[in-house]
Amino acid sequence: MHSRVERVRARMAEMGVDALLLSLCADLPWLTGYEAMPLERLTMLVLPADEVATLVVPALEAPRVKRHRELFSLRPWSETEDPVAIVAELVGARRRLAVSDRTWATFVLRLQAALPDRQWLASSRVTTPLRAVKDAAEIEALRRAGEAADRVATQLRSGDIPLIGRTEAEVSADIGRRLRAEGHQRVNFAIVGSGPNSASPHHEPGSRTIGPGEAVVCDFGGTMAGYCSDITRTVFTGPPPPEFVDLYSVLEYAQAAAVAAARVGTPCEEVDGVARSLIEGGGFGEHFIHRTGHGIGLEEHEDPYIVAGNRQPLEPGHAFSVEPGIYLAGRWGARIEDIVVATEDGPEALNAVDRGLAVVEA
Amino acid sequence: MHSRVERVRARMAEMGVDALLLSLCADLPWLTGYEAMPLERLTMLVLPADEVATLVVPALEAPRVKRHRELFSLRPWSETEDPVAIVAELVGARRRLAVSDRTWATFVLRLQAALPDRQWLASSRVTTPLRAVKDAAEIEALRRAGEAADRVATQLRSGDIPLIGRTEAEVSADIGRRLRAEGHQRVNFAIVGSGPNSASPHHEPGSRTIGPGEAVVCDFGGTMAGYCSDITRTVFTGPPPPEFVDLYSVLEYAQAAAVAAARVGTPCEEVDGVARSLIEGGGFGEHFIHRTGHGIGLEEHEDPYIVAGNRQPLEPGHAFSVEPGIYLAGRWGARIEDIVVATEDGPEALNAVDRGLAVVEA
Repeated sequence: MHSRVERVRARMAEMGVDALLLSLCADLPWLTGYEAMPLERLTMLVLPADEVATLVVPALEAPRVKRHRELFSLRPWSETEDPVAIVAELVGARRRLAVSDRTWATFVLRLQAALPDRQWLASSRVTTPLRAVKDAAEIEALRRAGEAADRVATQLRSGDIPLIGRTEAEVSADIGRRLRAEGHQRVNFAIVGSGPNSASPHHEPGSRTIGPGEAVVCDFGGTMAGYCSDITRTVFTGPPPPEFVDLYSVLEYAQAAAVAAARVGTPCEEVDGVARSLIEGGGFGEHFIHRTGHGIGLEEHEDPYIVAGNRQPLEPGHAFSVEPGIYLAGRWGARIEDIVVATEDGPEALNAVDRGLAVVEA
Repeated sequence: MHSRVERVRARMAEMGVDALLLSLCADLPWLTGYEAMPLERLTMLVLPADEVATLVVPALEAPRVKRHRELFSLRPWSETEDPVAIVAELVGARRRLAVSDRTWATFVLRLQAALPDRQWLASSRVTTPLRAVKDAAEIEALRRAGEAADRVATQLRSGDIPLIGRTEAEVSADIGRRLRAEGHQRVNFAIVGSGPNSASPHHEPGSRTIGPGEAVVCDFGGTMAGYCSDITRTVFTGPPPPEFVDLYSVLEYAQAAAVAAARVGTPCEEVDGVARSLIEGGGFGEHFIHRTGHGIGLEEHEDPYIVAGNRQPLEPGHAFSVEPGIYLAGRWGARIEDIVVATEDGPEALNAVDRGLAVVEA
């Protein structure tokens, strides 16, 4: 943690940032081990470039602050105090302020009113290059979360998770229970899209009952010891028709090629380009309607993004998803996703479950 | 929904708001039935005072938008477009803009850069007086969520949920499973604070094993058919010592009196004052370190807040928690919480579980 604070201070000096104001988003736990509650009572770490940091925290949550207390002083506020005024006083005359990305608008607007004529930027501008490169302990945490998710994906592919005759919402809840049983503290999402819904990448699992002869896209992940998992496997309930097999083989080849392309030094957009050009070559270009991937760590989605326009070269320790998909609206769709780490020895996939099209008869 | 849009437009006219920009927070589902995903791809409803609304949504999430499509037109954006530029173009020359309370800072700052020299306010300024008054269907939804939470609280008090020898985290996970089994789609929190941790109001359930002869504060809630539950009961593992019985009886009396005081026309702060003065009278004033309650509905915490300084009088349809607590740092604590609706016939508690101190021997 101390080394992280030092590196953040160096970045602040480099960028001329006078104070960091951290509330919601993973910058705060990454830097201090403390996570703000996502509630209407403001928690905010004020980290001036030139002074020790102060954690402004609701009095009733002050007993939660236990670890790394040497990194900041504590300023609990009672129910009739104004936390925005407290933050403004701590900021004082400092001019260039970086506020954490997910701070609620209501607090941003109140801070701007209390601190007029300042320059505001998102704290990710400061922290992203530091947080995106994972250290060995972080990669180990991502690996363990990936292994736990793999065990659930294996249960899905083997038919241990019944599909036919159950609703998407039931299967989603079942997957969530299994993620917890495999060691996840939190389930972040468990997308189950069946039949025509498999063509909706962020489908909300609902009351549709899964039938035989359908594509089922399952994309799920959660948090284990602070770090996230995220995996997608697509299965077919019964023997798949040749058309779907064709689509799937294009996808499988494109996903594997994109993983293989994720080498240190390769720009993020090139990894996207590899998947995209192969899917285009297979005749499905217009049906791959999202980027190829996103970084992952303390947050499910963070830098680096594997998307056209992102010329940033991959660095050792970058961890991200590779998840192309093909979606034929109203009919069916498929997606395959693994988490990959860029290393000096080449890309390392943190998921190891078979990526072939599994036929589930249950 | 149509009536809600009309009432919102009337409030906008009254307040001189030129456009509403709704992203995260419950204003969007309350108004349109659609809930934005809390991700880095911007979803935003642009509702100008003088024109039909447009929902700017990531292309891959457009298939999720199914209901109430007559209320807005859809503007899906692809991965290489800039959603902030799209919103800015829809806003045009409009000057006074209300952005939803939980919109991420990163989007607020980018919107402010794309739309310079505007007036910005939080959308809750527009929507709060409308959303705080629940209609009959909303109260019925809150009632059903409360009944489901009651069944879990009854299991806790009766000893069906084993406590002694389990960790707080295990009990928390068990309560979560039971909330789901009783019909909740989502568990929002399940605080379990045992022994000295019972004195930490927002304690994070951890690895502490619950022993005999301890206070255990359990505060849990989730979402059922869109509306939230929230209940707290405190139990003692074994016969409680007289000192704790004294503390608890002061608390129980104060909570009941505050519920009884929650009559239409009474200012919110008076309900808080009733609980606070009785706890002060019992000698525990300095140990009641938070407000008495918060509104509840689509969100766990929303207006009206039952807190000193809030002179707003209760109206029929206001729904809120009444949850005083007494916390002796390092030793023990207790809290009792019910959800209450203000009605013309007086306060109606939506939780009916016994509030006396339950002794749990398991």
